[in-house]
Amino acid sequence: MKVFVVYAHPNPNSLNATLKDHAVGALHRAGHEVRISDLYAMKWKAVADADDFPERDKSLPLEYMVASGEAYENGTQPRDIAAEVEKLLWADAVIFQFPVWWFGFPAILKGWVDRVFAYKFAYGYKNAGNTYRYGDGALAGKRTLLSVTVGGPEVDYGPRGINGPLEHLLFPITHGTLFFPGIDVLPTFAVYGTARIDEASVEAAKRALERRMVRLFVDDPIPFRRQNGGDYPDRHTLAPHIAADITGIPAHIASDRTGAPFAVQALESVKD
Amino acid sequence: MKVFVVYAHPNPNSLNATLKDHAVGALHRAGHEVRISDLYAMKWKAVADADDFPERDKSLPLEYMVASGEAYENGTQPRDIAAEVEKLLWADAVIFQFPVWWFGFPAILKGWVDRVFAYKFAYGYKNAGNTYRYGDGALAGKRTLLSVTVGGPEVDYGPRGINGPLEHLLFPITHGTLFFPGIDVLPTFAVYGTARIDEASVEAAKRALERRMVRLFVDDPIPFRRQNGGDYPDRHTLAPHIAADITGIPAHIASDRTGAPFAVQALESVKD
Repeated sequence: MKVFVVYAHPNPNSLNATLKDHAVGALHRAGHEVRISDLYAMKWKAVADADDFPERDKSLPLEYMVASGEAYENGTQPRDIAAEVEKLLWADAVIFQFPVWWFGFPAILKGWVDRVFAYKFAYGYKNAGNTYRYGDGALAGKRTLLSVTVGGPEVDYGPRGINGPLEHLLFPITHGTLFFPGIDVLPTFAVYGTARIDEASVEAAKRALERRMVRLFVDDPIPFRRQNGGDYPDRHTLAPHIAADITGIPAHIASDRTGAPFAVQALESVKD
Repeated sequence: MKVFVVYAHPNPNSLNATLKDHAVGALHRAGHEVRISDLYAMKWKAVADADDFPERDKSLPLEYMVASGEAYENGTQPRDIAAEVEKLLWADAVIFQFPVWWFGFPAILKGWVDRVFAYKFAYGYKNAGNTYRYGDGALAGKRTLLSVTVGGPEVDYGPRGINGPLEHLLFPITHGTLFFPGIDVLPTFAVYGTARIDEASVEAAKRALERRMVRLFVDDPIPFRRQNGGDYPDRHTLAPHIAADITGIPAHIASDRTGAPFAVQALESVKD
């Protein structure tokens, strides 16, 4: 299979670099083809702005959404964006390797999304508004995995930990960004406590990540409810009988076989 | 009072620009001093990387966290970062005006946080690990308000809307980024449906935002639980008797006087 690794860390000696290299090795050993976007090494342009549309009439005010849709449809995207779109369409799976900074993407990776996930490609697909989203869309049939490092201790991210559960903090990414254009999202692979991690824990993390790479096309994705699967009859709101007694993020994740909330137990740490 | 406006939109003719200008006018009329960081106009450097530490020994691998703490303590931060720190310390309140892109900050604003919220300043305050955070820290006593535009319809962000509630999607920003170093966070001001908004709605949004500016130092903040207020006896996990029956994001927000969950009703839209 074909695997696209998107990697964002400024230090080539970092734990993130180690994990990325180890994941790529494991993918090769499993017989997969691998392509890598090393965003820092590529000096990826993070900011979505008028320079993304060199052929646009500069006397008009920039409507970034509209301009991104036109450039995508007309084949006039800048080369760096078009190359990432091509890799996404090539891939069967996408791995994101990054450190969680302020409970989300580093800016360079957020800027990769802001620029690559163009209108009419990642949203407004088929020029049909919100008809195709959350399980349907240009990237349906692919799968993805976030492999992240977290500076703080795991306890802070527990069901009642002070930061909030990691899968809920990452919901704007897993659900709102990746499931939105149709990608199935595997449970996040997280290494906690990386601000002061010892060598044995690094080795344990590498082994755990390798297991996730081996199971990349086998593991069940997070069971986010599909927009067009019947749970949202008007495409906007959950039907009254679906997750009838809950609101907020957990309502959009179907329970797993044991009936326990999936979001919490889905998170794999190095302790597994 | 002193108000710092951080504004991020690439189009000076945008609704975000209109709202920013209107907020600044309202603040001036209320007698406040205002300073503005227009991140696009400033060509703000979004990516946290080795160039942020020109005086660092480049033969050593970059530990961004450590380097940011040293630069903050030694007064060797680059001029652009130091200027933002100075404005933050000057301000009594900070307004963030931005479009919600992929359920979070535009990359240029995420990069403002990644670079300005340095170690030993915004986290690891007083070189004391996590002793001071979530209500305590370098920015305690200040208040902040997110003023955002959202392309999609409000129904998608309702308690059972398909995107998830906006205040939960923004929790990594409001709680994890701004309350973390001590800032009190006011309920978000959101204008929905901006992908196709008419002139009357823009005028209504301006009036509603003006009311929020008039009440900037009067309104109650979101009642996030303070780390050192007694609800987290070990500084990591909620005490068993606090929000005893709930997990996840809502557990960290105290109910308001009426007993209703604050997070949902806190969100002001232009329909108010």
